[in-house]
Amino acid sequence: MTNTLLILPGDGIGPEVMAEVTRIIDWFGARRGLKFGVSEDLVGGAAYDVHGVPLADATMARAQQVDAVLLGAVGGPKYDSLDFSVKPERGLLRLRKEMDLFANLRPAQCFDALADFSSLKRDVVSGLDIMIVRELTSGVYFGEPRGIFEENGQRVGINTQRYTESEIDRVARAAFELARKRGNKVCSMEKANVMESGILWREVVQAVHDADYPDVELSHMYADAGGMQLCRWPKQFDVIVTDNLFGDLLSDVAAMLTGSLGMLPSASLGAPRANGRPKALYEPVHGSAPDIAGQGKANPCACILSFAMALRYSFDQGDEATRLEQAVEKVLADGVRTADLMQAEGATPVSTRGMGDAILAAL
Amino acid sequence: MTNTLLILPGDGIGPEVMAEVTRIIDWFGARRGLKFGVSEDLVGGAAYDVHGVPLADATMARAQQVDAVLLGAVGGPKYDSLDFSVKPERGLLRLRKEMDLFANLRPAQCFDALADFSSLKRDVVSGLDIMIVRELTSGVYFGEPRGIFEENGQRVGINTQRYTESEIDRVARAAFELARKRGNKVCSMEKANVMESGILWREVVQAVHDADYPDVELSHMYADAGGMQLCRWPKQFDVIVTDNLFGDLLSDVAAMLTGSLGMLPSASLGAPRANGRPKALYEPVHGSAPDIAGQGKANPCACILSFAMALRYSFDQGDEATRLEQAVEKVLADGVRTADLMQAEGATPVSTRGMGDAILAAL
Ligand SMILES: CC(C)[C@H](C(=O)O)[C@@H](O)C(=O)O
Ligand SMILES: CC(C)[C@H](C(=O)O)[C@@H](O)C(=O)O
Repeated sequence: MTNTLLILPGDGIGPEVMAEVTRIIDWFGARRGLKFGVSEDLVGGAAYDVHGVPLADATMARAQQVDAVLLGAVGGPKYDSLDFSVKPERGLLRLRKEMDLFANLRPAQCFDALADFSSLKRDVVSGLDIMIVRELTSGVYFGEPRGIFEENGQRVGINTQRYTESEIDRVARAAFELARKRGNKVCSMEKANVMESGILWREVVQAVHDADYPDVELSHMYADAGGMQLCRWPKQFDVIVTDNLFGDLLSDVAAMLTGSLGMLPSASLGAPRANGRPKALYEPVHGSAPDIAGQGKANPCACILSFAMALRYSFDQGDEATRLEQAVEKVLADGVRTADLMQAEGATPVSTRGMGDAILAAL
Repeated sequence: MTNTLLILPGDGIGPEVMAEVTRIIDWFGARRGLKFGVSEDLVGGAAYDVHGVPLADATMARAQQVDAVLLGAVGGPKYDSLDFSVKPERGLLRLRKEMDLFANLRPAQCFDALADFSSLKRDVVSGLDIMIVRELTSGVYFGEPRGIFEENGQRVGINTQRYTESEIDRVARAAFELARKRGNKVCSMEKANVMESGILWREVVQAVHDADYPDVELSHMYADAGGMQLCRWPKQFDVIVTDNLFGDLLSDVAAMLTGSLGMLPSASLGAPRANGRPKALYEPVHGSAPDIAGQGKANPCACILSFAMALRYSFDQGDEATRLEQAVEKVLADGVRTADLMQAEGATPVSTRGMGDAILAAL
């Protein structure tokens, strides 16, 4: 079976971190016999500049065909004043929605060599390893009606939170499956005390658990309390499952706890394609960082670790994924640091390329 | 002018912390000549047990008449299985909505004596003093349509995020006014990159600023980035203004940063009544803590400091509010601790009553 990859570097630091991923992909081809058919295309502001839309139809069609999409980052001040419908983010949201990537896996992992970099105390975060499973194709991100309307002489902004039973069911299953391969614990978060959609969420997650995953430990928490508990004692969690909007906030809070945002990958998975592999998109959790774009300062690790997730979840190469992850960890342990990972003055950071070199050497 | 207060102790630890507030109120009457007409009533589960609803109409009517409502806490496992419409939380939400308490002020302040109690590093939180202004009467908490509906043979949970221009306008003004009395900086948070209601939010906040508060420094941040920044370097913020749901999460995260949830008060303010005083409700940020209820272990400080906010915002007694706040700070500096504020084993915590005694002595 050929392994097909579509690379969408996007905006800001996207292209420069993706350049390092490309070298890693080549290494796996040359040294581990893992050949990939790689194509590249535009997304976000980069696509808008050429096509007038943040994702061309042809790109969308290609994304549907490949085993995995690797995305760098989208957005930047240049595009801030664009109409909502063509903003860079819409390209990413279209990919998520049309590929139906309902399960967004966001590991929040604290790298031992970087634990002191967290704003939290070392004992609170060292060894932290949470997996947030965020629903990614529904909820308030996509619900209708939506828009800005005129009403009684003034404007009103409307968005709709909407979840069907089957949407909740499938993401809950993804979370329980993951938990079985980890700490066997799931905490589901919503606001069932104020939102009916949260009541349905809680009921369905509980029902899926009782029917098919009674062996997994399940708890429920209100999302506000969940945010608190993440800050207080994050190690109480194994897998967290939550909706699109809560997942957006809570996974960012969890990411920041680790102190190393530039290190965190994500995977967005959908239903199996004809070849048995899931529709899949991989991207770093960090954004396009326009302030440092083009300067060779960006940390490519999150994007490289996103490719490691692709090896694991799209290509069934768990051992090769671990090999890559361990190479990254070794490089960190050796003290190699891009600028974002430097705490003290004095030491000299490596460039984006320098980090890529170090990881290739460690491989 | 008489000063009228309605006390709603509610559930769990509500009654025991409120008992200490009552003693403080009496002290201000006896020693500072500040007389209050105090009445008491039921809310939450306590009201449900007697009336079959979490807030009786008569209680609602009384709340509309007084200068300030002081609320303890609502909720508990005993009421978990109640129908959504009569859950304890609905009593609180009805008060907020019918009194039209649109501006929820949630200070996140780190008490110097307690800074080591935070899960964050001391230098990240010591001296922290943020004011979160959360919109409290609209958004997804109250928008219609809402409910669980049948659709194509399955259930779907729906809630509606809805903001009118005037709802955003008035809470923005409240934030700017507060900022002028503090650090003169406002950061507004939404998800304008994915939600049209967020676009309107951003536009209106900006317009209010440009028209009437150009002297205040205004910035905008996506709510997920806001959650991150709160964890990374919270001292960058002065006043944060945000909607009902984001405010729920972000203010809880901010509260937890301080490490002393048992210390944090809140004020919910509406439009001026006939006597010029705003409609107002004051409550601690913490919940009903059913696990320790009735044991005399609860920390009454958050509820006592909520009364201090009442002195400041309802009764125009800023100096007396400061007096009370300083008494609480002195007691903390002296090492008096309820169980929730104890880090090390060995030392003996004071009871709820003991903390009240210490604060009265300090006054
Ligand atoms: C860029 C933006 C649309 C996106 C989101 O809100 O989902 C981002 O914050 C994320 O978490 O992936
Ligand atoms: C008790 C609950 C309804 C409430 C809310 O969600 O607003 C609480 O979390 C709060 O923040 O005051």
